[in-house]
Amino acid sequence: MIIEILRLNHRIARDKRITTHVGLTSRSLGASAMYYSGDKDSEMENSINKITEKFGGPFIIEHVKNEISLIKEKKKQGYIISHLTMYGISFEKYIKKLKNEKKQLIIVGGEKVEPEYYQLADYNISVTSQPISEVSALGIFLYNIHGIKEDFKDAKIKVIEQERGKLLKEF
Amino acid sequence: MIIEILRLNHRIARDKRITTHVGLTSRSLGASAMYYSGDKDSEMENSINKITEKFGGPFIIEHVKNEISLIKEKKKQGYIISHLTMYGISFEKYIKKLKNEKKQLIIVGGEKVEPEYYQLADYNISVTSQPISEVSALGIFLYNIHGIKEDFKDAKIKVIEQERGKLLKEF
Repeated sequence: MIIEILRLNHRIARDKRITTHVGLTSRSLGASAMYYSGDKDSEMENSINKITEKFGGPFIIEHVKNEISLIKEKKKQGYIISHLTMYGISFEKYIKKLKNEKKQLIIVGGEKVEPEYYQLADYNISVTSQPISEVSALGIFLYNIHGIKEDFKDAKIKVIEQERGKLLKEF
Repeated sequence: MIIEILRLNHRIARDKRITTHVGLTSRSLGASAMYYSGDKDSEMENSINKITEKFGGPFIIEHVKNEISLIKEKKKQGYIISHLTMYGISFEKYIKKLKNEKKQLIIVGGEKVEPEYYQLADYNISVTSQPISEVSALGIFLYNIHGIKEDFKDAKIKVIEQERGKLLKEF
């Protein structure tokens, strides 16, 4: 299963940490790429890339200028497009179907999402019909369609589960 | 089931939006309160309270000066204390048990968490053993022990699920 994320309309001042959390959540739960539009933000990219270098990948980040072209291109390549929005249909109704899709692009909105995205998406999907957080919405969605990723490549470091305290294994 | 959240060490400059997302995630997935320590932040409190006024509650936010006392007090009251940390044991091993606990306090860390919290917690729990996000970790955890909350009280507005577009019902 190939999962990629498109984060819309990143604003450096306001979204740096939120978009970083979107990226880390994506990486931990099976996505191999995060595209983002809005402001190009090298600091945010670096903070995610540093984690990938240390804890393994693959996970790439790419700034895009034309989100609509990216979505159309992915559609041509056979990707299923899900757009996460509190206004959509509950994700629980789509899980069974989406678990079997081999190529998926998941759109995570910014502050405002233009109607065009609702039209372009194959599915407009909500994770609760409440104002929640794009970070937790994406996390819950990915956990349900993919689950926790275990097979990271080229990791230099790995956490070993402990009841109390911290244990890191270095390679 | 009573679920309450303790968010440690909030820093206004850095964490405003992250803590807001922790609050909204908590509210949507069954928690009735979020305590937080660190900087008192009225703006963050207001942005969550506004959502609760509009979309319903109950959900209270309270700044605490002494987190350790709060945890000890909750323990005396019979709360089970889970501390979310990437170093802990996978939450999947605890779900069955925690689904049946009637009173729960969930600790969500800040940048640094002192060893004392690992000792005080009944369970140190990871949602992936990777750097993820406290927002998505909490979301996935709450989704699994509680699920999506449906019964909000005193809501002035409610989202009606749509395949495309937005529909809000006002009361």
